[in-house]
Amino acid sequence: MSDEVGFVAMAGPKATGEAPEVGVGMLGYAFMGKAHTNALKKIPYMMYPPAAIPKLAAIAGRNAEAVAEAAKRYGYAKSYTRWQDLIEDPDVQVLDNSGPNNLHLEPNLAAAKAGKHIISEKPLGRDAEECHEMWQAAKKAKIVHMTAFNYRFVPAIRLVKDLIDTGKLGRIYHFRASYLQEWIADADFPMVWRLDKKIAGSGTLGDLGSHIIDLARFLVGEPKSLMARTGTFITERTGASGKKEKVTVDDCFEAVVEYKNGAMGTLEATRFAPGRKNHNTFEINAEHGSVRFNLEDMNNLEVYMKDQDKNVQGFTKVLVSESYHPFWKNWWPQGHIIGWEHTFVHELNHFLEAVVNKTPIKPYGADFEDGYRNAVICDAILQSAKERKQIDVKY
Amino acid sequence: MSDEVGFVAMAGPKATGEAPEVGVGMLGYAFMGKAHTNALKKIPYMMYPPAAIPKLAAIAGRNAEAVAEAAKRYGYAKSYTRWQDLIEDPDVQVLDNSGPNNLHLEPNLAAAKAGKHIISEKPLGRDAEECHEMWQAAKKAKIVHMTAFNYRFVPAIRLVKDLIDTGKLGRIYHFRASYLQEWIADADFPMVWRLDKKIAGSGTLGDLGSHIIDLARFLVGEPKSLMARTGTFITERTGASGKKEKVTVDDCFEAVVEYKNGAMGTLEATRFAPGRKNHNTFEINAEHGSVRFNLEDMNNLEVYMKDQDKNVQGFTKVLVSESYHPFWKNWWPQGHIIGWEHTFVHELNHFLEAVVNKTPIKPYGADFEDGYRNAVICDAILQSAKERKQIDVKY
Amino acid sequence: MSDEVGFVAMAGPKATGEAPEVGVGMLGYAFMGKAHTNALKKIPYMMYPPAAIPKLAAIAGRNAEAVAEAAKRYGYAKSYTRWQDLIEDPDVQVLDNSGPNNLHLEPNLAAAKAGKHIISEKPLGRDAEECHEMWQAAKKAKIVHMTAFNYRFVPAIRLVKDLIDTGKLGRIYHFRASYLQEWIADADFPMVWRLDKKIAGSGTLGDLGSHIIDLARFLVGEPKSLMARTGTFITERTGASGKKEKVTVDDCFEAVVEYKNGAMGTLEATRFAPGRKNHNTFEINAEHGSVRFNLEDMNNLEVYMKDQDKNVQGFTKVLVSESYHPFWKNWWPQGHIIGWEHTFVHELNHFLEAVVNKTPIKPYGADFEDGYRNAVICDAILQSAKERKQIDVKY
Amino acid sequence: MSDEVGFVAMAGPKATGEAPEVGVGMLGYAFMGKAHTNALKKIPYMMYPPAAIPKLAAIAGRNAEAVAEAAKRYGYAKSYTRWQDLIEDPDVQVLDNSGPNNLHLEPNLAAAKAGKHIISEKPLGRDAEECHEMWQAAKKAKIVHMTAFNYRFVPAIRLVKDLIDTGKLGRIYHFRASYLQEWIADADFPMVWRLDKKIAGSGTLGDLGSHIIDLARFLVGEPKSLMARTGTFITERTGASGKKEKVTVDDCFEAVVEYKNGAMGTLEATRFAPGRKNHNTFEINAEHGSVRFNLEDMNNLEVYMKDQDKNVQGFTKVLVSESYHPFWKNWWPQGHIIGWEHTFVHELNHFLEAVVNKTPIKPYGADFEDGYRNAVICDAILQSAKERKQIDVKY
Repeated sequence: MSDEVGFVAMAGPKATGEAPEVGVGMLGYAFMGKAHTNALKKIPYMMYPPAAIPKLAAIAGRNAEAVAEAAKRYGYAKSYTRWQDLIEDPDVQVLDNSGPNNLHLEPNLAAAKAGKHIISEKPLGRDAEECHEMWQAAKKAKIVHMTAFNYRFVPAIRLVKDLIDTGKLGRIYHFRASYLQEWIADADFPMVWRLDKKIAGSGTLGDLGSHIIDLARFLVGEPKSLMARTGTFITERTGASGKKEKVTVDDCFEAVVEYKNGAMGTLEATRFAPGRKNHNTFEINAEHGSVRFNLEDMNNLEVYMKDQDKNVQGFTKVLVSESYHPFWKNWWPQGHIIGWEHTFVHELNHFLEAVVNKTPIKPYGADFEDGYRNAVICDAILQSAKERKQIDVKY
Repeated sequence: MSDEVGFVAMAGPKATGEAPEVGVGMLGYAFMGKAHTNALKKIPYMMYPPAAIPKLAAIAGRNAEAVAEAAKRYGYAKSYTRWQDLIEDPDVQVLDNSGPNNLHLEPNLAAAKAGKHIISEKPLGRDAEECHEMWQAAKKAKIVHMTAFNYRFVPAIRLVKDLIDTGKLGRIYHFRASYLQEWIADADFPMVWRLDKKIAGSGTLGDLGSHIIDLARFLVGEPKSLMARTGTFITERTGASGKKEKVTVDDCFEAVVEYKNGAMGTLEATRFAPGRKNHNTFEINAEHGSVRFNLEDMNNLEVYMKDQDKNVQGFTKVLVSESYHPFWKNWWPQGHIIGWEHTFVHELNHFLEAVVNKTPIKPYGADFEDGYRNAVICDAILQSAKERKQIDVKY
Repeated sequence: MSDEVGFVAMAGPKATGEAPEVGVGMLGYAFMGKAHTNALKKIPYMMYPPAAIPKLAAIAGRNAEAVAEAAKRYGYAKSYTRWQDLIEDPDVQVLDNSGPNNLHLEPNLAAAKAGKHIISEKPLGRDAEECHEMWQAAKKAKIVHMTAFNYRFVPAIRLVKDLIDTGKLGRIYHFRASYLQEWIADADFPMVWRLDKKIAGSGTLGDLGSHIIDLARFLVGEPKSLMARTGTFITERTGASGKKEKVTVDDCFEAVVEYKNGAMGTLEATRFAPGRKNHNTFEINAEHGSVRFNLEDMNNLEVYMKDQDKNVQGFTKVLVSESYHPFWKNWWPQGHIIGWEHTFVHELNHFLEAVVNKTPIKPYGADFEDGYRNAVICDAILQSAKERKQIDVKY
Repeated sequence: MSDEVGFVAMAGPKATGEAPEVGVGMLGYAFMGKAHTNALKKIPYMMYPPAAIPKLAAIAGRNAEAVAEAAKRYGYAKSYTRWQDLIEDPDVQVLDNSGPNNLHLEPNLAAAKAGKHIISEKPLGRDAEECHEMWQAAKKAKIVHMTAFNYRFVPAIRLVKDLIDTGKLGRIYHFRASYLQEWIADADFPMVWRLDKKIAGSGTLGDLGSHIIDLARFLVGEPKSLMARTGTFITERTGASGKKEKVTVDDCFEAVVEYKNGAMGTLEATRFAPGRKNHNTFEINAEHGSVRFNLEDMNNLEVYMKDQDKNVQGFTKVLVSESYHPFWKNWWPQGHIIGWEHTFVHELNHFLEAVVNKTPIKPYGADFEDGYRNAVICDAILQSAKERKQIDVKY
């Protein structure tokens, strides 16, 4: 392949005004820190012309050597071992909170108080109460706030949103979603912070379940009531000390959900599904058609429309590519697929646009209110499982 | 292609003793009557050498002209408009009850009383009470009795059963099953008997749900408790008279199920899934692997085994063919697929073997006790939906 | 499931005039004999009301005991060890030649001479010369003659034919077809008649290749010229005697084909494709769309149409069911799939209709002329491979 | 999701020595310029610790304004409108030639003469003669030289290479590859440089065909002989001037190839396949198994191994993830897929490692000799099509 292909109108170099710089302070340097930083580095030349140029002002983490190395690797100007330093740094205009769940509340409250805009990883907090506090603080401070439900930024999922919003799917009958992984299915897998309620708040529910709960709200609307069971298959695991420790969170949950608009559905997540690496799937059945999505095959969307020619009707595997805006114009020609990391590019670009242009986070992004409502639903799932009865969802 | 292929050891013509004849009385002549009759006609030369030769003794239905035509078409010696005549006919040794749900109780009780063996379509009755009565009557009469859960006789599902029974899958963590169809999703679809509680007992639950409930019991084991919701999306439809009539059954149900062995899962069925023709799917996640099945692709089974070579590990699409017994040896070479109708050949052959050889219906087939337990679970689903709480399953 | 479903208008019992009986003489009793006989037995009640009622008059085979057993199994009135007896039997009106390739010429010529209609397995003969002789004899005798290219009778393939004939696909650019099997890939696999040029005529070419050559002619049209290579990977195999014998036929062939209408394509067949059981696939790329078919998934057809709504465009997996005539009305409701054996029911019904109603074999069926043209192409492939140059196809 | 996941051993921040900087001069700024530049920008923090730190020294293109904008967008220090300036720039140590096919020869020769290392887009030249000249010049200059066949750097394809090199597949019987696109299938599509033999050298053959020819050589080995046809479906198109211009290249080609090791296969490419966006697929059938790859689904590889447990044997869909080295360790956890652009990161990293560490380009990368041999095969395809006969491949 060579330059100057004729077959796609790609976003090429074109004149741009001066995009403002936005200083980013990153909390966390491992999985999410890497994914967010990669996105920040790609925005200036791939989301082109960019709304904002992120400046990697500072990164914070607990281990001094590791965080210094991360700063060098990714190009952050400074590194801190105290998150408070991030907040106090005048070069930092936005906090990117990619820390573990127990490091969301305090840094986010402090950042809001300091007037810094915040994008925070999900789940926003360990329970609804924490989330409510962060939401109120952000609202009061009038900052831009976003909860990082990045799957809203998968092109195929945005296409589903558009099919719904334009009425092409009609009344929704069913939404069934499962998020399946396999990584703790072995009894020998050790104790980690994600299995400790004090740090993680909940288990699979907050980690994987919160994603599909967010998609349910994004695509279908608010739930009215739910019934759920949770399970913990392996109740003790070997900790770092070599001793057995209690697993204090759920390994899985299953829920039946009724939505305010009359739709019915199931939500389920587990980390006990051998062979399922990152299997986040959903199917919607609606008045005029159905759609099916699978994150492991995220460049495609299966779509069935009742008005298709009867002779050749069926589920169409749509390779969501540059023929479908709004994300694809910045990438590659048809069929030259993107990957999981690109969702973060879209997400952080959306956030930075909101910061510099005052464009709204909603409805395409999730803000702290969405983070709070998500937590209310998680809490209702735990309550239903405990009380063995149907729970009405109330915000 | 021509004869005498060398590449498969197919069941060819070989000497056989005299297989006894078994006189069959068929109740019903439409969808199920056709499927069962086709199976009976294929057994003598495809399940070769056959355990029994079914003789098409008589067929019964309400419309005299239609039932006479059916007798001619299929080769039944006699036709009746009263089901009682079937029972009284001395040429009838077994009753094949392919009638609608409200025609199961009386004919089956009468047949049992008359000492005729019975294979009855599912759901066995309109509720657990009816089913219990039939089961007790059959037990008392010491007849061979079978409930026609034909999907137990899909080769791929039998393979799943074997993987479980031999311990190859290990402890089961999850069973998630959905049975999706689309045929009443249009509000214009008319009122039919399947939407009338008096005739059908329940809606999607008894029609489709009973199949996946049976597979859950067949593969995973007995449920301990469940929580469920049912829904009716279109509450009135136009009847034969042209007037609006009330839909008195469920259009869908969703349930969360906990099993006695600790497995967790969901069960769901609907007739409001556009594009889903006969989409009966399940996935099992277990200690040593996972399997996934889809009835629309019934010749295949997706299998993941944890002990597979790591470098080439993943879900394997197993084209279940003659390399896998016990059904394939009678059919065609590898990759020459079978269809939906073949499940009935396996099923009725299993029944006839039990009739003539006294081989057990269980564990591979379902008897009236299974039909009863199935109905108990259906009733528990309706109760949970009504009372908005978790219900313990008790037989 | 129970009788009287409301959701499909299936072919149910209806009044019919008296269908004439047609006496069938079957040559061969193994793989193809079984497939053809099964079809003959299903026609009277599944292709309902039938055009003709086949009577199983007699069956012939070399082994007296085996052929007697086959007669008993399948219900043939008589059994013969000489094929000549079939021809001479006044109860036989049609010869169904399911014998090996070297038993096509003489019986077919004799049957034609005796005025018996013929359906003969493919390849019609061992080379074009044999086929030409049979075609001329059949023409002269004015009998109904058919070559059993059964894949023309797969509903999905008929749908492709209709999409082409109605202009929905437009000008055809490409036809690429592969027929892959695995059964002789092991060097230990023994010598069988299919590997002996004297009996089989050619190897994979006549066995598998002739099928896709027929589909090429059926769907695309006549080839203009071709270039091809053949290969034999294992040149000696152990015969029944325990001694090594020469493999005298091709294990595979690959060909590039130019069609008279300007289309270009490839044809390929092999029995050296591990994992491919009966993998007969093709893809057509045309002016207005593309289609893709796979025999192992024969209930589906993948279709792409350029005029589909751009936002949800892609390959549609069409579950070819009763919404698509002409075969489905006789079978089962939507999504209740059929199998490989059903193609023979359609095929033999087409033949019997031609016998009793004088309906034409062409264009949907293949006659002896098609069998001859097929052999001309096979011969051209062998010639191109031998002479290392492009060959023009001339009938 | 949040930081510090326990379930994958990802490449995290770790101490590294000082990686040397390598000044890159980029020729071209559109499709390939973008893809290569993106890769260069990701290497320092994703291929961590990097072997080399690419410095974006200068970029050259014909349009002064556009190339200046590209320099600003991507961060190149300088921009030139003459490629000669790139070569003369002392900050440029390597030439990345992403220009069109007619801009490969002169710049590459000049760069070699100046002792600059070169990575050049494919096809290396417009014919074998051009390529031979570049190869000899590079050899003489003792520079590191690479032809950018990026699909060698798809993890799934590297896995195929490993399965072959370790003997796990055994003797190769078949390699069938197709590269299908759709972008010029409309007769209304205008004349572009890729359809002009003077600039492009050949059409689909050099553009798409060269990729699969490279994969054939990479995976199977050297071809011995071939037979081929080419076709041009639309012979005139409207040029920029509004006048009709002659299409002087092939729209498609089909070839039958015999390899030195006895393997047989087909190669085919077209831009006339509606619905096929970037459909680069191949299947290998070998002694111990088969593999199938599709670029549109590039995170997966379908693998069949003959030694798999017979009961669960079939094609396994391997989600090639971090369990498989050598590329995945730098990316994301299991099932978090990568995209098309990542192949360039792997490729350019391989090149830079060779530049700074003197590691060999072969066998995993393609050098100019591979670019030359590729062109010899392309020329043989054109010759066979013209002379209508089989051509022996001779380097």
